[in-house]
Amino acid sequence: MEFSTDARTDGLRKELVDFMYGHVYPAEAAYLDELDSLEDRFAWSESPILQKLRAEARSRGLWNLFLPGAEGAGLTNVQYAPLAEITGRSKLLAPAALNCSAPDTGNMELLSMFGTEQQKKEWLTPLLEAEIRSAFAMTEPDVASSDATNISTSIVRDGGDYVINGRKWYISGAMNPNAKILIVMGKTDPSADRHRQQSMILVPRDTPGVHITRAMKVLGYDDHHSGGHAEIEFTDVRVPVANLIGNEGDGFGIAQARLGPGRIHHCMRAIGIAERAIKLMCERADERVAFGKPLSQQGVIRDWIAESRVRLEQLRLLVLKTAWLMDTVGNKGAHTEIQAIKIATPSTVEWIIDKAIQVHGAGGLSQDFFLAPAAAYVRTLRFADGPDEVHKNALARNELRRQAARRSA
Amino acid sequence: MEFSTDARTDGLRKELVDFMYGHVYPAEAAYLDELDSLEDRFAWSESPILQKLRAEARSRGLWNLFLPGAEGAGLTNVQYAPLAEITGRSKLLAPAALNCSAPDTGNMELLSMFGTEQQKKEWLTPLLEAEIRSAFAMTEPDVASSDATNISTSIVRDGGDYVINGRKWYISGAMNPNAKILIVMGKTDPSADRHRQQSMILVPRDTPGVHITRAMKVLGYDDHHSGGHAEIEFTDVRVPVANLIGNEGDGFGIAQARLGPGRIHHCMRAIGIAERAIKLMCERADERVAFGKPLSQQGVIRDWIAESRVRLEQLRLLVLKTAWLMDTVGNKGAHTEIQAIKIATPSTVEWIIDKAIQVHGAGGLSQDFFLAPAAAYVRTLRFADGPDEVHKNALARNELRRQAARRSA
Amino acid sequence: MEFSTDARTDGLRKELVDFMYGHVYPAEAAYLDELDSLEDRFAWSESPILQKLRAEARSRGLWNLFLPGAEGAGLTNVQYAPLAEITGRSKLLAPAALNCSAPDTGNMELLSMFGTEQQKKEWLTPLLEAEIRSAFAMTEPDVASSDATNISTSIVRDGGDYVINGRKWYISGAMNPNAKILIVMGKTDPSADRHRQQSMILVPRDTPGVHITRAMKVLGYDDHHSGGHAEIEFTDVRVPVANLIGNEGDGFGIAQARLGPGRIHHCMRAIGIAERAIKLMCERADERVAFGKPLSQQGVIRDWIAESRVRLEQLRLLVLKTAWLMDTVGNKGAHTEIQAIKIATPSTVEWIIDKAIQVHGAGGLSQDFFLAPAAAYVRTLRFADGPDEVHKNALARNELRRQAARRSA
Amino acid sequence: MEFSTDARTDGLRKELVDFMYGHVYPAEAAYLDELDSLEDRFAWSESPILQKLRAEARSRGLWNLFLPGAEGAGLTNVQYAPLAEITGRSKLLAPAALNCSAPDTGNMELLSMFGTEQQKKEWLTPLLEAEIRSAFAMTEPDVASSDATNISTSIVRDGGDYVINGRKWYISGAMNPNAKILIVMGKTDPSADRHRQQSMILVPRDTPGVHITRAMKVLGYDDHHSGGHAEIEFTDVRVPVANLIGNEGDGFGIAQARLGPGRIHHCMRAIGIAERAIKLMCERADERVAFGKPLSQQGVIRDWIAESRVRLEQLRLLVLKTAWLMDTVGNKGAHTEIQAIKIATPSTVEWIIDKAIQVHGAGGLSQDFFLAPAAAYVRTLRFADGPDEVHKNALARNELRRQAARRSA
Repeated sequence: MEFSTDARTDGLRKELVDFMYGHVYPAEAAYLDELDSLEDRFAWSESPILQKLRAEARSRGLWNLFLPGAEGAGLTNVQYAPLAEITGRSKLLAPAALNCSAPDTGNMELLSMFGTEQQKKEWLTPLLEAEIRSAFAMTEPDVASSDATNISTSIVRDGGDYVINGRKWYISGAMNPNAKILIVMGKTDPSADRHRQQSMILVPRDTPGVHITRAMKVLGYDDHHSGGHAEIEFTDVRVPVANLIGNEGDGFGIAQARLGPGRIHHCMRAIGIAERAIKLMCERADERVAFGKPLSQQGVIRDWIAESRVRLEQLRLLVLKTAWLMDTVGNKGAHTEIQAIKIATPSTVEWIIDKAIQVHGAGGLSQDFFLAPAAAYVRTLRFADGPDEVHKNALARNELRRQAARRSA
Repeated sequence: MEFSTDARTDGLRKELVDFMYGHVYPAEAAYLDELDSLEDRFAWSESPILQKLRAEARSRGLWNLFLPGAEGAGLTNVQYAPLAEITGRSKLLAPAALNCSAPDTGNMELLSMFGTEQQKKEWLTPLLEAEIRSAFAMTEPDVASSDATNISTSIVRDGGDYVINGRKWYISGAMNPNAKILIVMGKTDPSADRHRQQSMILVPRDTPGVHITRAMKVLGYDDHHSGGHAEIEFTDVRVPVANLIGNEGDGFGIAQARLGPGRIHHCMRAIGIAERAIKLMCERADERVAFGKPLSQQGVIRDWIAESRVRLEQLRLLVLKTAWLMDTVGNKGAHTEIQAIKIATPSTVEWIIDKAIQVHGAGGLSQDFFLAPAAAYVRTLRFADGPDEVHKNALARNELRRQAARRSA
Repeated sequence: MEFSTDARTDGLRKELVDFMYGHVYPAEAAYLDELDSLEDRFAWSESPILQKLRAEARSRGLWNLFLPGAEGAGLTNVQYAPLAEITGRSKLLAPAALNCSAPDTGNMELLSMFGTEQQKKEWLTPLLEAEIRSAFAMTEPDVASSDATNISTSIVRDGGDYVINGRKWYISGAMNPNAKILIVMGKTDPSADRHRQQSMILVPRDTPGVHITRAMKVLGYDDHHSGGHAEIEFTDVRVPVANLIGNEGDGFGIAQARLGPGRIHHCMRAIGIAERAIKLMCERADERVAFGKPLSQQGVIRDWIAESRVRLEQLRLLVLKTAWLMDTVGNKGAHTEIQAIKIATPSTVEWIIDKAIQVHGAGGLSQDFFLAPAAAYVRTLRFADGPDEVHKNALARNELRRQAARRSA
Repeated sequence: MEFSTDARTDGLRKELVDFMYGHVYPAEAAYLDELDSLEDRFAWSESPILQKLRAEARSRGLWNLFLPGAEGAGLTNVQYAPLAEITGRSKLLAPAALNCSAPDTGNMELLSMFGTEQQKKEWLTPLLEAEIRSAFAMTEPDVASSDATNISTSIVRDGGDYVINGRKWYISGAMNPNAKILIVMGKTDPSADRHRQQSMILVPRDTPGVHITRAMKVLGYDDHHSGGHAEIEFTDVRVPVANLIGNEGDGFGIAQARLGPGRIHHCMRAIGIAERAIKLMCERADERVAFGKPLSQQGVIRDWIAESRVRLEQLRLLVLKTAWLMDTVGNKGAHTEIQAIKIATPSTVEWIIDKAIQVHGAGGLSQDFFLAPAAAYVRTLRFADGPDEVHKNALARNELRRQAARRSA
């Protein structure tokens, strides 16, 4: 057992931390101002500040770190995880600057694993170059999307085309006109087995019949810095059969495969958010005086700080172990842990941010600190990829099975 | 012991519920659209929809119900409390429609109790008529405002004037240009006893030196429907000495007196919000199907519904008892309970809304339900009027004293 | 709405408090010593100390206060509830001293409501005189007894007799040889409707075939002061048909009827326990000094004290309202509230005791304070009368129904 | 980063698991019977069953595994930790069978690190052979012992002797007459610096003036299987100066050094307890049927199982990382983590056991399952070695310092 990081990770971490302090943190305020002054609130990838950061990151070798293999930086999950955490400290800018932001990362992985050469050439290459952005269209407003069999968008073969009809919402990034490509989940065969009904298909955003109907909000935020969250109507949308990813019926399996590494990224970034929240909490607690002493000498606030640290250390280790399992025994072997980090991360990080906000008083919910948007974002994690409760139910079922097997052995 | 409501309350409740179903709920969507299409986001009181609702409410005798005595409807706290709860179900519209919305209610009470005849004539009368709005300027960005001795705004006598300098923020309602009058808390004598340093003074919003510097946000909301939350600079602001409320040094005492009934109103409205959240949670849980059965048959969701009901019933009784104590033994006698409801209400209601959101998935944080703004609003209650932790500390100190006195007896 | 108690309650409360301070509290230590030195650990009702207290209580009119109507003190639930709370402060002695201890109270109510004249004469009269004790035999070791249809004890008619076979455990009070009569729940017709399968029958403890097999423990305690908790085998136990309570199939209904007032008693006594825990917590926190100041000045401990007070006030009001509902609209009308107090009371009181223990350190779990046995007792309340989770599920089902009905109206 | 265990650990684990299934678990029931039938409840180490298990364990090389270096098995902390976890699954028997039970382990470490040759020969050797037992006398009934400066027992030099006066309680193991040696913490110089006032001294249990006054209980348990918890009066107890451990004033430092590895052991054993609780929870949930389906299909119970698993995985990783830090950077470098596991372990394991009990209903608190004594034991961990709150306060202070240093850097 060995809890230290290897030399390559250490080197990249040093480079990344240097980049964060030298370029990312200093750019945050200006970037927010730039965004606020945009005429078109969803022109994210054109940001001069972001473009400059990207060039800088790339020149430092901080580019596509998320992607294993030759197409990416070739890092293992356990190597990339600590770096993802650091980018989370400035989720606003750092992941995008490194071309490591969701949902593009998951989409690039997906294309890398399941795309045809043609699909890769057309969409993966420009994504890896950050020339375009992408979106992943799965959630639907009219059904409980945590149950994949509920998906009601239809993908129907018609000659050399597929015809798509349905309604999606909270399609993150898709308000950005530069999100040229949508990966759409729908049903090609509603009568097939539970997990063979769904397929995934590439739909260019400008295909006739694709209507971006409105920008969905998250607790008042439209998140235009990351391309917002679109509601999209697909009305008789026609794409060639070559746009299918994998085969008909592969949709559910591909979605599962996409989840594994993405889960690690999300969780580590969330841990980075929590670290920054602890930092702010301590700073504010030292600065503010009430009833004759700094808040940092109040017992209750110290209790929050201690709990935050203790919970976060545990969480980080769980995510790192999951990354290690994925590297050593694969996604299947890490199944329980991949569920576990989905369950543990949102509630832990949400708790920490909540306490940091409380130490800040009204300011904590204001536009002056990163805490309020962080709280809104982390709240969404409790149901993104399916509500925590669904995952807990599934994890418990497996635990019960494992225990039953042990008893009968 | 008797837990039923009296005939007058029953009558008003019937009238109010009728008004809610007949006029308020049906107007909500249009009102939100109206607000969204405003050129000036802070022209709240001019809303034609709100004006119409006010006329209707007034014609039904649903007007100024919060104010005891001849100037108002003459209801006791215990009579008004159940009505305040009902208005909370549409906090967006109902309190304003009945001229019962914060911070105007507290300001009207304050003027009614402590204002001179001249002050009442100039400001209370138009407020009671809903001709103007008002704001209460206490919180400051640079200090922990929960400790009143931290207040750094200065009010200095200079001949026949007072001169005010300082910075305030989160002054609710003050973005609305029709909020003609600000009640400002500051220090007239920083060297006086802890609770005799502060004074309150009336400052018309258009006095030279009053600068509305920006609109503060709460999570992503600017709350323009209720006049927003202003950051205000007071630079050498000069008002006549006649604008002082009460005497120099009375500020802290007046603030305390203002809190009592306002606390009841806030808490009961929050309970109304929670009731609506439970209603939505049940409705959604019945509608949505996942993994073969409606969410309402999932054990965990039922657990949330049950806990919500059980916690809310307890909370309501505590607030009602507090109202009864205020009516029978006065604010002083109800001191502990007034603290207790401040402690109990935000966390209970926040918990319920959180669960309702979770049942809604992404929709729960969207602009399509009242849950997201409700969550943002209720979160602020955990530090509005001072963070819960300060109140818990004070309540515990009193409990310890009471127990010590009992031991020595 | 009116939260004060009436004159009769006030008078009895004064008398009872006087009795507690004058006789009960001073007798506790000696009573524990007396119990520890008993050769036969289950000879509870013969305690000279208890006998003397009973005589004193009776002479003060503090006798059978729990029982409404002419057979008892004629108090309503709302009148008795505050008195039950006070007895809870010394659960060890006070309820027994007043002949108001479970399970005898429930059994007396049951006989009073459903017993024949003969049954009353034989068992109710001596119980009212505290000449004998009783037990209520429902829970079974082999099934989840929260689901009444699981009850597997059989009651089979055979000529003029019923023959009983089965195994029960945790039959409180039944280790006491003076618990002359057992009320046994079993099935007379396993094929009947779900809630018509069960019957209740009177079984004298010395009937052939009744075997007390062992004393069950609760976290190491055998609770001999209250007659312990027996495991009982019923092997071909024969009693005359006249011993049936009500008719065949009435068992479930009678059990439900028995629960209502008993629930109030249990909950109010538990609130009394919590009050004493708060008292001890404050006292200890004032006395103990660590790191330069008394524990009572530590923020976290104050937080516990405040939370304890705030939660307990809410809980008490809910129980009192439930008592009032039972008095005014009956058990049926109070159904939801009777469930609610079962859900709310154990967890609230358990939380408070836990914190009081923590303030006491090791002493809190020792034999030197009442906290450890109180913790053990209150822990049982979370599944006594069925686990909280079953009640939450049922309460949620009703809430969902009510909300659905409202929607369709 | 590497989360697998090494070959030596794997080998010992296999051996240990084999020993547990082959000898320990099968002996539990008979051991409890043996203990119950003891005339003298505190003759623990004479148990024939235990003696037999010890011989078996020793023959398998499962002996003194806790002790690093030549005197013990030479395992690192990270190697021993997973084995300690396994012994925790039968805390009743396994640690004692392997001569790895507290407080002897800590006392042996202490003697190994700080004892003179003479002290080692006299006490360490027979302890390593399990010929005698020992106790560690620190906690006092009259003060908050979490603050070491509160210790009031005096150790006064008088010629060639030290004279000891004071009162201790909850001295675990000391009811066992075979606990021949007590390590007593007292003050040699109350006027010295805060952490130089205390000394430690060896006091044979049969020294004149040592009075075992009573057996302290934990909830209803006297824990005679592990030598109980003694209250001890020291009245003019005289021991030669050679009995001092280290020098005068070293007491606090030695106590700290003793804590590190012991903390790992306690925490890992507690994790073993939690694993067994999860096992029982799953088994019971599968077996019991209520309302038409096994409890294991109830959503709320599944939620508990999932939460248990997720929390326990995180906790285990934190303890293992702490062990690794102790091995690589020493106790000082692992300071924060040693605090963190003290904070995290008791509450996590307590929560899991509580849920397992709830699934068992009344049986969960009975003498039929290991859950009730486990709950009692784990509850003590929340204040053993000082209440969690003290450790949280200290951890937060360090976090605040670290963050402040980072800010100024």
